[in-house]
Amino acid sequence: MKTGKSARVAELATAGHGGITVSTLAEAAYFLERGFRDITWAVCAVPSKLGRVSELQREHDVTINLITDDAGAARGLAARAAELNQEFRLLIEIDSGEHRTGIHCDAPALLEIADVISKAPHLVLEGVLTHGGHSYDCHSIAEIKQVAEQERSSVVTAASRLRAAQYPCSTISAGSTPTAVHADSFEGLTEIRPGVYLFFDLAQHGRQCCGVDEIAISVLSTVIGHNRANRRILIDAGGLALSKDTSANAFLPDAGYGWVFDEACTARIGDLRIATADQEHGFVEGGDLPYDRLPIGARVRILPNHACMTAAAYDRYAVVDGDDEVVDTWDRTHGW
Amino acid sequence: MKTGKSARVAELATAGHGGITVSTLAEAAYFLERGFRDITWAVCAVPSKLGRVSELQREHDVTINLITDDAGAARGLAARAAELNQEFRLLIEIDSGEHRTGIHCDAPALLEIADVISKAPHLVLEGVLTHGGHSYDCHSIAEIKQVAEQERSSVVTAASRLRAAQYPCSTISAGSTPTAVHADSFEGLTEIRPGVYLFFDLAQHGRQCCGVDEIAISVLSTVIGHNRANRRILIDAGGLALSKDTSANAFLPDAGYGWVFDEACTARIGDLRIATADQEHGFVEGGDLPYDRLPIGARVRILPNHACMTAAAYDRYAVVDGDDEVVDTWDRTHGW
Repeated sequence: MKTGKSARVAELATAGHGGITVSTLAEAAYFLERGFRDITWAVCAVPSKLGRVSELQREHDVTINLITDDAGAARGLAARAAELNQEFRLLIEIDSGEHRTGIHCDAPALLEIADVISKAPHLVLEGVLTHGGHSYDCHSIAEIKQVAEQERSSVVTAASRLRAAQYPCSTISAGSTPTAVHADSFEGLTEIRPGVYLFFDLAQHGRQCCGVDEIAISVLSTVIGHNRANRRILIDAGGLALSKDTSANAFLPDAGYGWVFDEACTARIGDLRIATADQEHGFVEGGDLPYDRLPIGARVRILPNHACMTAAAYDRYAVVDGDDEVVDTWDRTHGW
Repeated sequence: MKTGKSARVAELATAGHGGITVSTLAEAAYFLERGFRDITWAVCAVPSKLGRVSELQREHDVTINLITDDAGAARGLAARAAELNQEFRLLIEIDSGEHRTGIHCDAPALLEIADVISKAPHLVLEGVLTHGGHSYDCHSIAEIKQVAEQERSSVVTAASRLRAAQYPCSTISAGSTPTAVHADSFEGLTEIRPGVYLFFDLAQHGRQCCGVDEIAISVLSTVIGHNRANRRILIDAGGLALSKDTSANAFLPDAGYGWVFDEACTARIGDLRIATADQEHGFVEGGDLPYDRLPIGARVRILPNHACMTAAAYDRYAVVDGDDEVVDTWDRTHGW
């Protein structure tokens, strides 16, 4: 839910109040308050944050899934859990090739961390978790499929090692959007956790993970200036409204800060993109600029470069059904 | 106030409730509710937004300064103002070299726009305004001084043309942070409007506009992982906490997404910077990584690449006096 951060989005995605993954404790609090019970916080926990986790767990009478990838950190969590006199549930993070956080599925540390958790009276070993984020570097669907298999087999291997050593491992969790879309097999996994999957964006389109017509969010914006002397059309969506993320451009070189669509979001206008994003000004570029089609005051929709970053600027979603009619407003959370 | 977006910051900056510039109507509403009366909204107005401006003006019994750079838009504003039967005050935006919005100070359009405004019963011509944003491209203080003079003389020239043609011009407004810091003369200006000036950041430091010790905001963050196999220290501040803005790097090649300082924010730790920013993970890089000095759980402060974008992720400022003690909390606004 790191992309949508909205209860309505989560309800649609899980057909009710199913299991979700969050990226911050603010998200955890938001979803707990709205009836979600099965929550994994997929950023490594540290002892200083257990106090807040404890409050959430007590208030909502749940146990949140936390993650760790370090025996020393696990010892610190064990000590803090004892001070708080409360049970905390942990997954061990596996590095399936992304090389961000996590340990290799064959690393001795896996059993060492499992040992620390299992011996700690207030910790429960829930399972293993990985994020195949290196799928974002793949240049073909075939490559994504390879990463998906690496992701799957890595965490399944880790689970087998834990079970062989008599440790419990109820949850075997993997997931990134490209692998969720293109994996040939999820065998052995108990869950997948794609995030931007729920909205998609140009970064996913450029990676062949979605069609443009599957991108579910856009930023409604107004043309506020024509600078014909410098061949510019300016809109009122800049870096704050679109985010300064440019990651889509690695695979979609003309993504800019987003593509310019008509107000009804049915089609891209020519080859227009937002090429420059000042704080509140977006610079429309791409071929001959259609000044007449986009007079000052005209409205356009910008398909975002990276949905997670763009959505983060807003307190709510205006839900549009078919044409431009707003049929609902969905709140969302933000912050930490 | 586009950077701080906080009443307490504005009160410090103006020694009370003085004149301020805002970048959004949400900011205008926020500051009006907190007693500010003299407000310029420095993004070109379009007719469809006058309704909201009108509500703010009525509710707070003030007239907001709006800007325009187009005779057609001014005609549209005149028509909408008549419909709303309310007075709106306009400044004409001058392009002093940034080439974003505005017209050249010698352009015939200046008098044409002035004519449209002056003849409209519900519009009042307040003056001229420019933003010397091309100061951000300067590679030396001498160059910034040249841009500052260009900015100043451009808008003063426009004012002279208006007055020579018997149009009123009470306000002659210029401003960007580099020019505000380094200008030799503000002669003829009635105000300057530097934004990030109030906080500074690495983007300004790289442009020789501030010392590192003058940067007033930082992001407090916790070390959440050691990935020794891949030579990484991970912190819990990523793209959402720091923003994905990398503009400082053009002038400060090792700025990354921010510099890593000690928790008390007294000194940079080695040459450490945030080199990669995933949504919630920051990757610490720069020379030999001090795993022992930065154990999991240690806290660091990140000096931001671009303060305007970083601050936008937060609802409030934790005000720190000297050491790490939080002495106050200042709210801020966001959105549109």
